Amino acid sequence: MKSITVLGSTGSIGTRTLEVAEQLGDRIRVVSLAAGSNWRLLAQQANRFRPELVALADEKQVPRLRSALADSGIEVAGGSDGVVAAASVDNADTAVVAVVGVAGLPASFAALESGKTLALANKETLVAAGELLTQVARDNRAEIVPIDSEHSAIHQCLRAGTVDEVQRLLLTASGGPFRAFSKFDLKRVTPEMALRHPTWTMGAKVTIDSATLINKALEVIEARWLFGIPADRIGVVVHPQSVVHSMVEFRDGSILAQLGLPDMRVPIQYALTYPERLPRSTRRLDLAELGGLTFEPPDTDRFPGLLLGWRAASEGGTAGAVLNAASEVAVDLFLNRRIRFTEITPIAARTLDCHTVTHPGSVDDVLEADRWARKKAMALAPGG
Amino acid sequence: MKSITVLGSTGSIGTRTLEVAEQLGDRIRVVSLAAGSNWRLLAQQANRFRPELVALADEKQVPRLRSALADSGIEVAGGSDGVVAAASVDNADTAVVAVVGVAGLPASFAALESGKTLALANKETLVAAGELLTQVARDNRAEIVPIDSEHSAIHQCLRAGTVDEVQRLLLTASGGPFRAFSKFDLKRVTPEMALRHPTWTMGAKVTIDSATLINKALEVIEARWLFGIPADRIGVVVHPQSVVHSMVEFRDGSILAQLGLPDMRVPIQYALTYPERLPRSTRRLDLAELGGLTFEPPDTDRFPGLLLGWRAASEGGTAGAVLNAASEVAVDLFLNRRIRFTEITPIAARTLDCHTVTHPGSVDDVLEADRWARKKAMALAPGG
Repeated sequence: MKSITVLGSTGSIGTRTLEVAEQLGDRIRVVSLAAGSNWRLLAQQANRFRPELVALADEKQVPRLRSALADSGIEVAGGSDGVVAAASVDNADTAVVAVVGVAGLPASFAALESGKTLALANKETLVAAGELLTQVARDNRAEIVPIDSEHSAIHQCLRAGTVDEVQRLLLTASGGPFRAFSKFDLKRVTPEMALRHPTWTMGAKVTIDSATLINKALEVIEARWLFGIPADRIGVVVHPQSVVHSMVEFRDGSILAQLGLPDMRVPIQYALTYPERLPRSTRRLDLAELGGLTFEPPDTDRFPGLLLGWRAASEGGTAGAVLNAASEVAVDLFLNRRIRFTEITPIAARTLDCHTVTHPGSVDDVLEADRWARKKAMALAPGG
Repeated sequence: MKSITVLGSTGSIGTRTLEVAEQLGDRIRVVSLAAGSNWRLLAQQANRFRPELVALADEKQVPRLRSALADSGIEVAGGSDGVVAAASVDNADTAVVAVVGVAGLPASFAALESGKTLALANKETLVAAGELLTQVARDNRAEIVPIDSEHSAIHQCLRAGTVDEVQRLLLTASGGPFRAFSKFDLKRVTPEMALRHPTWTMGAKVTIDSATLINKALEVIEARWLFGIPADRIGVVVHPQSVVHSMVEFRDGSILAQLGLPDMRVPIQYALTYPERLPRSTRRLDLAELGGLTFEPPDTDRFPGLLLGWRAASEGGTAGAVLNAASEVAVDLFLNRRIRFTEITPIAARTLDCHTVTHPGSVDDVLEADRWARKKAMALAPGG
């Protein structure tokens, strides 16, 4: 049996994590839960999973949660300290960090510092603070198991060798909805057009990032820290069917790939039960039925956002935090029709140009770089 | 450094094994070599690799080998006892068994009985004697690392989990040169037509087997014993590009695949250096350049030979030896124009029908079943 804590339990990955935990029955015990502000759903989850502790980041809603859980015997904590308490709770083997945005950083660090395996769904933790986080993991002999499908694929493929034996990591990219658009057509992409994604259902930010390929740039940075592989040995290949989730090429010429139907519950369960694999009754990928898989090189002329990944991964330090924050601001500007789709990447790039990389010594240093980049990106926007 | 012995060193896999050994330089030391009758090449190899012992199965040629290696200080042995001595030589960690046909059986058993890792390129060892061989491996705590591309792929993919966690093994098949032929056209296939194979260059027997899909039937049997997975959890998918060498589906829904350009030196090196992976300067698979991979279900109506694999793997015992021997006889009959291409499988199937499966207790029992099947298959042939 594994004991877990789920941080960000009311979001998309959080709810699916609890769904997987429920399917696994008595193989998984939920020790604590934390959410942002959705106290109603958190109370429902608490009543169902009976954790020892629940935490709500939004302090204003804490009294409501408290009264909903009165007489339950479940401890209620509030604010970011409460979330950190849930992340570092005793008796949990694994902390699932599914909090969205840089708000996930303190929870990720707290989980590692308390020696837990970090099952990481929060992109920002590795993108913005990967250098620092992996150092903390080493210091605490704690493992990080990624939950997104690409890095989970690489984690699985790497079991067929060692990191020292890696020639190249190969991230697959769906190519986004505008894969076939000309540069001219890309200029005229509207938020409405961008918010329809072919394979996965995701939030607006991730959806736009997958259209600019900035999502893949961020994944290059994540892979760089997570697996300790230099940026120039991380490749990206466009694979529109999203069936091969990513690959590892070893130095003997052998390539390992992980495949499956797009279903986040597979990497979630993998992270929860690692190093074991437990049965899942799920629809299976049938390659003969599917017929074919296609691959093409990414076009960094039309999608220059991808290049920012290698740049930030090579620069290291605060570069990831700056790219992450600046691209978030740029996506917001696009969604609010203040800039064109094709201006998202230049704003992120110019913010990086203006930044002097430093090596953060703490989460606060990372958050400081994040704040700086948001201000700078706003200032770089038209009329900013 | 690893010390190896190469049995069948003058054949196609044997020579490539020595090529790989040479490329690996002082990481590999060749302790002994054995061949069938090609004493000239064996003497050349001995002079190059300076093993302690060389053995030639064909006793008539031994005097020539001896005089060629006079004053070399290399011990020369002859006959099948000599080959077994080379297989069980002291100081070798790994025995590469690349002998062709059932003649490879004694060498494989001798290698395992002397506690060596068996790097196995000889199909017949597992097909004909898999049940017995894997028992001997367990008894001697010796490992078997397969050298053919499909089983090497599965061996690599299995490192991402355990055998108990396997849902299904998925062998890929090129589909052979007549993949698109109608039943009518298959009846008119000549030996000349069959002896051209698209991707691999192989011997006549293997080439015809890959055209009837009996090669894949034999691989199902090999996989059944090598990995201890029941026949009904071994699948076959046709993949004409031969880039995905095989796959493992785990019970959590995750599929691991091993990919690469068709190059036997990759699985050879993997087996020589396992569990390490050493660098190889080889042409790399570029999926974006390749563009696409296709998959289709095998057509067992047109290629019923494939079904014999599941049948023999389920029956166990001597069934594999009988299928192997009967199909060899049937292929010979076809190559000598005594039967049609479409009669190869029925002869093998009818030989299996006539056989009462027993569980062999020794290599001799296996060889006895082999002899019985050859006689029976000949008798079942037209005019037999």
